[in-house]
Amino acid sequence: MADPKIEEILAPLRASVKSQGDLVRKLKEEKAPELDIKKAVAELKARKKILEDKELSLAPSDEIFDRAKMEDLIKRRFFYDQSFAIYGGITGQFDFGPMGCALKSNMIQLWRKYFILQENMLEVDCSILTPEPVLKASGHVERFADLMTKDVKSGECFRLDHLIKAHLEKIKSEKNTKAELKSEIEEILVKLDGMNADEMSALMERFKMKSPITGNDLTPPIEFNLMFNTQIGPSGLVKGFLRPETAQGIFVNFKRLLEFNQGRLPFAAAQIGNSFRNEISPRSGLLRVREFTMCEIEHFCDSKDHPKFDSVKDTKMLLYSADNQEQGRPAEIMTIGDAVAKHIVNNETLGYFMARIHLYMLAVGIDSKKLRFRQHMGNEMAHYACDCWDAECLTSYGWVECVGCADRSAYDLTQHTKATGIRLAAEKKLPAPKQVKIVEAVSNKAAIGKEFKKDAKIINDTLATLDSAALEELENKLATEGHYDLDTPNGSFKLTPNLVSVKTSEKTLHVEEIIPSVIEPSFGIGRILYSILEHNFKMRDGDEQRTYFSLPPAVAPMKCAVLPLSGNAEFQPFVKELSKELLLVDVSHKVDDSSGSIGRRYARTDELGVPYAITVDFDTTKQPHSVTLRERDSMGQVRLPLEDVSAIVRDLANAKITWTDVESKYPKFEQQENTKGAAA
Amino acid sequence: MADPKIEEILAPLRASVKSQGDLVRKLKEEKAPELDIKKAVAELKARKKILEDKELSLAPSDEIFDRAKMEDLIKRRFFYDQSFAIYGGITGQFDFGPMGCALKSNMIQLWRKYFILQENMLEVDCSILTPEPVLKASGHVERFADLMTKDVKSGECFRLDHLIKAHLEKIKSEKNTKAELKSEIEEILVKLDGMNADEMSALMERFKMKSPITGNDLTPPIEFNLMFNTQIGPSGLVKGFLRPETAQGIFVNFKRLLEFNQGRLPFAAAQIGNSFRNEISPRSGLLRVREFTMCEIEHFCDSKDHPKFDSVKDTKMLLYSADNQEQGRPAEIMTIGDAVAKHIVNNETLGYFMARIHLYMLAVGIDSKKLRFRQHMGNEMAHYACDCWDAECLTSYGWVECVGCADRSAYDLTQHTKATGIRLAAEKKLPAPKQVKIVEAVSNKAAIGKEFKKDAKIINDTLATLDSAALEELENKLATEGHYDLDTPNGSFKLTPNLVSVKTSEKTLHVEEIIPSVIEPSFGIGRILYSILEHNFKMRDGDEQRTYFSLPPAVAPMKCAVLPLSGNAEFQPFVKELSKELLLVDVSHKVDDSSGSIGRRYARTDELGVPYAITVDFDTTKQPHSVTLRERDSMGQVRLPLEDVSAIVRDLANAKITWTDVESKYPKFEQQENTKGAAA
Repeated sequence: MADPKIEEILAPLRASVKSQGDLVRKLKEEKAPELDIKKAVAELKARKKILEDKELSLAPSDEIFDRAKMEDLIKRRFFYDQSFAIYGGITGQFDFGPMGCALKSNMIQLWRKYFILQENMLEVDCSILTPEPVLKASGHVERFADLMTKDVKSGECFRLDHLIKAHLEKIKSEKNTKAELKSEIEEILVKLDGMNADEMSALMERFKMKSPITGNDLTPPIEFNLMFNTQIGPSGLVKGFLRPETAQGIFVNFKRLLEFNQGRLPFAAAQIGNSFRNEISPRSGLLRVREFTMCEIEHFCDSKDHPKFDSVKDTKMLLYSADNQEQGRPAEIMTIGDAVAKHIVNNETLGYFMARIHLYMLAVGIDSKKLRFRQHMGNEMAHYACDCWDAECLTSYGWVECVGCADRSAYDLTQHTKATGIRLAAEKKLPAPKQVKIVEAVSNKAAIGKEFKKDAKIINDTLATLDSAALEELENKLATEGHYDLDTPNGSFKLTPNLVSVKTSEKTLHVEEIIPSVIEPSFGIGRILYSILEHNFKMRDGDEQRTYFSLPPAVAPMKCAVLPLSGNAEFQPFVKELSKELLLVDVSHKVDDSSGSIGRRYARTDELGVPYAITVDFDTTKQPHSVTLRERDSMGQVRLPLEDVSAIVRDLANAKITWTDVESKYPKFEQQENTKGAAA
Repeated sequence: MADPKIEEILAPLRASVKSQGDLVRKLKEEKAPELDIKKAVAELKARKKILEDKELSLAPSDEIFDRAKMEDLIKRRFFYDQSFAIYGGITGQFDFGPMGCALKSNMIQLWRKYFILQENMLEVDCSILTPEPVLKASGHVERFADLMTKDVKSGECFRLDHLIKAHLEKIKSEKNTKAELKSEIEEILVKLDGMNADEMSALMERFKMKSPITGNDLTPPIEFNLMFNTQIGPSGLVKGFLRPETAQGIFVNFKRLLEFNQGRLPFAAAQIGNSFRNEISPRSGLLRVREFTMCEIEHFCDSKDHPKFDSVKDTKMLLYSADNQEQGRPAEIMTIGDAVAKHIVNNETLGYFMARIHLYMLAVGIDSKKLRFRQHMGNEMAHYACDCWDAECLTSYGWVECVGCADRSAYDLTQHTKATGIRLAAEKKLPAPKQVKIVEAVSNKAAIGKEFKKDAKIINDTLATLDSAALEELENKLATEGHYDLDTPNGSFKLTPNLVSVKTSEKTLHVEEIIPSVIEPSFGIGRILYSILEHNFKMRDGDEQRTYFSLPPAVAPMKCAVLPLSGNAEFQPFVKELSKELLLVDVSHKVDDSSGSIGRRYARTDELGVPYAITVDFDTTKQPHSVTLRERDSMGQVRLPLEDVSAIVRDLANAKITWTDVESKYPKFEQQENTKGAAA
């Protein structure tokens, strides 16, 4: 895989990453102060980024990708475009036109088949408007924020890291900036990603940053919560947000879903739907937007072995482990079976989903050479997660995270249990009955009801959820201080020994209660869609003007075009009949009977990514009726009987047969397309 | 159809409607004052409602519908349930569980096939977050409101008509209320729907209404806009709303869609997606909710004839024309061909869509006897619409509007053209070139640019959209007053003769510009889904506890259940193999290997609406392997070879064969289900 010449250039960069990775490990082993570790990790990430940028710049490329040309095609054929453009447009919002919408809908249908149908998942469709307490429990109200700064006079907002980056890059590019400062700026830029508010604030002061638009002063860094807020109902009193992810809708329905699954683990629930993030400065097209479609899975399990792991264990994938990242080594191709056996991937269930994600990504048209799974390094992961791998696609914007696959342990269910007092847990039958000591809070319900009225329920519910440590504290406080302050979602309540006591007893248990672990594969459909378009954007050999999308038939917006050779009226009945037959076998298609040469119309269907085209010509009108069938990528054509063609296209579209099968069965049609003339 | 005895009872009510309908017509013909007409129409509606309520109460019913029992099943099997219930829940929001979600997704897939695929529509997927100017132009900011009243102390809000209704019904039910007042209240109640703020305010005062919860005073009626508002971006300056309908996303993309369709009319665009309405007091389950899925079509056309009308003209439908409503006559069954020929339905395109809606509704399981198309009466329609029919389903809540089908003329495109200065119009080739007098505003662009800077563009754009009347006025004002005040979206600007003049010239036209008409079928998926459930909720003869949903296979959440007769280990490999084979042919299914008698498990699959069940028993394990296949509605069973069954179920699910075909091909399996014992 590796080119020795390139490796020679990369070697010092790899060594630099490795030495810093070793330092981070050492600091961790020595339990060094957290701040020291943090600094070392930031430096590690910076060195990793330099290595990765260099690697990408040296990668041999057999193709030239022209983003402007692709974006022109996307706009011109209305795959998608900016929303509300006639009103001046809104950044970070896009409307999908007929082709983009069909591509997206086909991707989702295939996702439903790959995951929900084939894995027997429980699909749900939950509310987008979410009341505040739910997102407080999940941590989004407190933590789901980016740093920004405001122009003190105009109020205009800037995402702080973007502003700093632009400012420093400008200084760097100025003629009279000294070499020393330039290299210092370079260093700052690679570290910017991991900086906190204080560090960024210091940079703003040091470089005297002002609003790039007005020159006015800027505020100190402000944490801006990325959720859109609104009020639910007319009173203005119920605060709500547009959900920032679909996952919480699944967690709050856990009990209903468990019951639907007859109380048994494991099971997976899935949701397809829109989420919303009020980005400070959306950019990079579909990659950072304000509303987007996600497909999320929450797999609830007690054991992390997976019964179907064997069926995927030989799947070869490009894995970029945390270890390789820390040691400056490149990503490696290996089977998921090996990765789990070597404990590179934490467990079978996580590995199973990674393999399924990999297969899905290939099926929708992602180039396997531009797909890798990157493991989060220790300090990247949320504190509750025990392993996390991102499926990343290589695009002209670099490696883009398209699917996250995280082992979230029992975090979310625990959080919602704490917030509501309702135990989100499953029962598991014990192999043999067990004698256990039960410690529990026994409340005097009548007395509590009398004293706390409407809060009585939440008090009793909270008492029932206390863990053993809390129960011990309760018992102690009641005995020593004569009261205990119980924290509930409705506030704190003072409980006295006449209201509650702690009882210890022996009990025979047949089941144990467990809060299941959660494995969460989370797909960003817009990002995958954009990557598919980049990976499939092609130019015809020798004709750069003639571009097309080599989309797999399974996701192509339409499966087939029907083209009369010319406007001759004799062709009309055949075109109509063909269209009817294709509908009967559920093949989406487009009749293009506009004027323009046949080559020009082929070029148009190529631009739309339509994989097959049927042409009705003068021979069609004669007995025995026949048509030509053309394949987009090879531009190969065959001649076949009219009565065969709709079934053949259906089978091609459903991948029951291949183009090679068709070419071996029917005679080649040799008439040359006028490729040059078609470009106009 | 009509029962003479019932008609005898209804006759005086019909006559009462007719005489009022005649009065309304007379007033309109005489061009009576608008207030008089409005009053007469309100009275007409009131009489109509009395007639309809009576008609419904007398309708012969062969079945008893038990809503509580159905709701229990819906909740128990998690078709859908209140959102965020563990947090206390939010009214008007529902989460769809696995069965409801699959039903909904199947309905949408069928919709996509019926409309987008078969009619070659252009599907789009537009932003939900919508900036204010778009919804100002559409009229939603100004008019999309309901009346409410607030408790002056607690701030609690009540939808005004609901509050008045509850208050008056309470008075009516009190013992010491006089008969005279009771009958007056009855009359008020039927008129309540059409009352304005002043009329309702008068009722509040007359009956001294207070908050039903606290007894506090209430505010006068307040107009509450039903759109959820938020801010787009971090500045808080860009006001946005969650879209209240999906239609506007299509209108603002009109130019892109027209271009995609190569400039040609007619074409239809469609959108499937969520919309949001901040209802003051949501109720009636899925019928009035705060977020909901819509499927909307905007068919843009210049002529209202429809090339495929012939293919549907013999479709028989229950039509309730405005005329019949005004004359106290019942709805009538007639073919859509007759309805268009007799000008009951305004045009072929509207009729074509009504017939397609009708066929779709039957395909998803709506009972044809409980489906009618009701025409809006003159005063119900929006002022711009020229005809509108609602597909209504009869449920235990009465007739519920599920699909609207309106001819909106050129209203929406005209509004957005006015607001943006961008002409949303198509060009149509003239049969022969035409000489026309062109009157146009000629602006001195350099001078305008110099004087108005950044507003120059909107001024020039606005000048280009002036119609002939406005141009005449411009010419006059410039000549007589020396200036003209031009209104633009950015405000008014004073133009003087050095900046603009009016030029008249002759021109040869080959095309004419037309603003197309729009026919809009708009489907409320949640309402249709609820109606499907009601229409298909059944009880087994002689066993009221055993309920099921007779959902058509096309929309049933799962097509098939696979049931081992017992927990015997010998059955396992056959169950696994069957499940695999069903997956290969894309048949969604559920393996139910839980304990419980086979009858009990059949009852469970019946409750989920699963149409077919395959049972693996001891004969399955013997050569030749065979299984039983059971049909839900008839509970009929056949015995068939194991290798046949997955293809048979696939063909049944796709309606390629019928159960009768299966019964005639394979031997009946006679073993009786234990229906009684199964109910537990």
